[in-house]
Amino acid sequence: MRRDALAAAIADVALLRGEFTLRSGRSSSYYLDKYLFTTRPDLLAPIAHLLAERVRALQPTRLAGAELGGVPLVTATGLATDLPYVFIRNRKKDYGTAQQIEGVLRPGDRVVLLEDVATTGGQAVEAIEALRGVGAEVLAVIAVIDREEGARENVERAGCRFEALFTKTDLGVVE
Amino acid sequence: MRRDALAAAIADVALLRGEFTLRSGRSSSYYLDKYLFTTRPDLLAPIAHLLAERVRALQPTRLAGAELGGVPLVTATGLATDLPYVFIRNRKKDYGTAQQIEGVLRPGDRVVLLEDVATTGGQAVEAIEALRGVGAEVLAVIAVIDREEGARENVERAGCRFEALFTKTDLGVVE
Repeated sequence: MRRDALAAAIADVALLRGEFTLRSGRSSSYYLDKYLFTTRPDLLAPIAHLLAERVRALQPTRLAGAELGGVPLVTATGLATDLPYVFIRNRKKDYGTAQQIEGVLRPGDRVVLLEDVATTGGQAVEAIEALRGVGAEVLAVIAVIDREEGARENVERAGCRFEALFTKTDLGVVE
Repeated sequence: MRRDALAAAIADVALLRGEFTLRSGRSSSYYLDKYLFTTRPDLLAPIAHLLAERVRALQPTRLAGAELGGVPLVTATGLATDLPYVFIRNRKKDYGTAQQIEGVLRPGDRVVLLEDVATTGGQAVEAIEALRGVGAEVLAVIAVIDREEGARENVERAGCRFEALFTKTDLGVVE
């Protein structure tokens, strides 16, 4: 699928209009429901293909994705690149092995964090801290969509490279 | 990968010994850390291949997986079968579009629910109820591993077929 056709298809299925309260607490006149593009193999497969190209250029040893939206992305991109990955929970669970990072992460691992829709980058920065807390090096955050509301600046301030497959402008969002 | 080699590889990476409290509240002398096999493409790909064979035989219109463990399974099996899928949250989130089922689910959809490690089947039964609440028909629950502690009975009592790729016996668990 061509990059511009994929952008149009994502906007077609995932762009909702109305009044929304975002994770960051801000209100917005639009919402990109990431699950509407990450639960369709016909869209997730070409997205993972584009993510895999960027991931390979960074030569990580592992990928990461934060729950819940990052989990289908990192799974699909892990399958596309043959790289193992971890899931980062929002908070610790209270049963079983009780950990914030699920999967295997080793000190010195070079990790690329995959993000669905980046707004202020708050969840990405929290995930970067969790990964560094285990001794991993975070090479970059790659978002599928950048809403262009501070994510790049905040991720870069945290000392990480930031990339996005698409911006809200690519999706034709006019506020 | 042969089925018995896959069972041995899963046990090798995911079977932990110690004292564990399970989601159901029970204590156990062993724990199968599903994330240790769902975060490795070399194990997830052959698991998804086996799940896809069983899914195709049931001819569903959609797949489902409960957070968090079911999400990588349903993503990989969706990619393997080209079937769309939904994620079922444990509870409603309080921002964005605020729903328990993420993705598109339509009344009359014929759904197969994929589960990681089934113990009593409690999470599966909750997920079946959530899917039926939207008017979907749940054809079956397919677990990767059946710990053989009541999941089959409870899922069947809820009126659903239950299948598992492996039992704890296949993985060589002796309590």
